[in-house]
Amino acid sequence: MDRNNTLPARTGTALRLQQGDRLKIVNTHGSQVVDCWALNAADPAEHMSMQHCRNLWYRLAPRAGDLLVTNLRNPILRLAEDTSPGIHDTLFPCCDLKRYRQLGIEGYHASCAENFATALGTLGLAPPLPPAPLNLFMNIPLRVDGGLTVAPPASRPGDYVALEARMPCIVVLSACPHDILPVTGADNTPKDVDYAILPAV
Amino acid sequence: MDRNNTLPARTGTALRLQQGDRLKIVNTHGSQVVDCWALNAADPAEHMSMQHCRNLWYRLAPRAGDLLVTNLRNPILRLAEDTSPGIHDTLFPCCDLKRYRQLGIEGYHASCAENFATALGTLGLAPPLPPAPLNLFMNIPLRVDGGLTVAPPASRPGDYVALEARMPCIVVLSACPHDILPVTGADNTPKDVDYAILPAV
Repeated sequence: MDRNNTLPARTGTALRLQQGDRLKIVNTHGSQVVDCWALNAADPAEHMSMQHCRNLWYRLAPRAGDLLVTNLRNPILRLAEDTSPGIHDTLFPCCDLKRYRQLGIEGYHASCAENFATALGTLGLAPPLPPAPLNLFMNIPLRVDGGLTVAPPASRPGDYVALEARMPCIVVLSACPHDILPVTGADNTPKDVDYAILPAV
Repeated sequence: MDRNNTLPARTGTALRLQQGDRLKIVNTHGSQVVDCWALNAADPAEHMSMQHCRNLWYRLAPRAGDLLVTNLRNPILRLAEDTSPGIHDTLFPCCDLKRYRQLGIEGYHASCAENFATALGTLGLAPPLPPAPLNLFMNIPLRVDGGLTVAPPASRPGDYVALEARMPCIVVLSACPHDILPVTGADNTPKDVDYAILPAV
């Protein structure tokens, strides 16, 4: 990788990408979910949109090679590489404090929603409420009876995805702090992930 | 019904509901998809959110009795009644002009996105880009191989849903103008629907 960076467990970051840059996200320990958003750098009201992606793919989740589009149906990223089993979620929102209240947490709890806001704040942007994230490595099986369940990720240590920017954009990543349901693995323990930006050549 | 209203084929409307009001939406001809949004009347940035609804339901679509929640996880509507087979879509975005361009239309085509903007404009509101709609009666089967398909609605003439407001809100309805894929029935012909507001007693 061009330069290794670690995203510590439970935290987020916002990264500026130029068209053609690749962002490699490594599931270092294998079981960490990474919530991912992308905003048009020129107009953050245009953002990667899971509903529009599903309409493009005619599937629930992306495969390597698929474009990821915005709420204006413009390509913003491409899933250039995916060495994981390809199980990612587009159905569920990011976690937030209200969700942790529903799950019985009474005090403070880190959340992807807070990470999204904090990360964009470091770039001087007033964050909107989080759009639907691409939940990388998140495993939400759909049962035959139509029910959705939460299962540990199927990814393995070192599995990675590479996202290629199709427009100048801001990508926000959050190493999901969930530690109640087995979202981030059967041990319910959030972990670090690694990432690197590989500039366009 | 308290007062019958007809929503002409291909058009939209925005309706103010008080808490406890019920909005009955009748699939008069049986095969019409109705895109539906709900915004908090006090703060339209808070809106009904399909991603948060799925996280509440742990299913892809609502059943009679289910709450519909916002991007702040607050109940905004309740699916109080549903006489249809219960097939509704939460996965696909509303149609827009760009989608019709992708489907080969070169000139003007009515769209749910335009209906959303026009309807909110009649209330003096500057509409955001449309959030993910609840696509009432829309039939997007998920195949065993994970592929999504577009099928005619399973609803029958006279089937209806009743949505109960759980906060003062603005509901936007669009009788989907889609006439290329069989979204609105095997005859690809958009049709009128009827609706009525039944005030809280």
